[in-house]
Amino acid sequence: MRVLHIINYKKREERPVELVGADRATVRWLVDHTTGAKTYAMRYFEIKPGGLIPLHHHPEEHEIFVLSGQAKVLGSAEDATAQKDDVIFVAPNEPHGYDNKHSKETFRFICVIPLLKSD
Amino acid sequence: MRVLHIINYKKREERPVELVGADRATVRWLVDHTTGAKTYAMRYFEIKPGGLIPLHHHPEEHEIFVLSGQAKVLGSAEDATAQKDDVIFVAPNEPHGYDNKHSKETFRFICVIPLLKSD
Repeated sequence: MRVLHIINYKKREERPVELVGADRATVRWLVDHTTGAKTYAMRYFEIKPGGLIPLHHHPEEHEIFVLSGQAKVLGSAEDATAQKDDVIFVAPNEPHGYDNKHSKETFRFICVIPLLKSD
Repeated sequence: MRVLHIINYKKREERPVELVGADRATVRWLVDHTTGAKTYAMRYFEIKPGGLIPLHHHPEEHEIFVLSGQAKVLGSAEDATAQKDDVIFVAPNEPHGYDNKHSKETFRFICVIPLLKSD
């Protein structure tokens, strides 16, 4: 692979989010170990109106940038709403989820996660 | 700090890019070691029309998502143009830069970088 590459995110495969209870939520892995990353990966998520990524937790932290839409961030103080241009930091093992059941817009965000050592 | 926090990117301080030759380019550190990150940091960049981040290199890789505008990516094959919705991966030590001298729109992107161990 080239050491500097440019690609439109839509060229990455779109897959359903594999988490029990997830609904109308998809992920595209934009940069990962298959494309040269060694430490962390960049993913693109969409949650359609009515959709959900339920509350869950894991050892990997998240750094998130919201591209469009709005959703309730489960696990945050009083389930705050995140919207376009918001940055979200989720610390390791912190429960988090995204509820788009009450908006009419797709919630789209970039989410960066550490790559597991076994990857 | 909270372990899950949400903030609009505009609340982070905007600073000039400190690189010799950089022009009309600013950075905001969205998530870094001061806000809980330990492994990598998320930054937000703007390069105004006519602006430039010149060719440079360093050991840290980049994972980039373009939010708006377009710019010539210096160091890529034939100085390709990157635009909204493009993903860019820059491998460690790979020369790279962004030239917005020929568009009339601000080039805006998210750029994730490993945190140095000394941070």
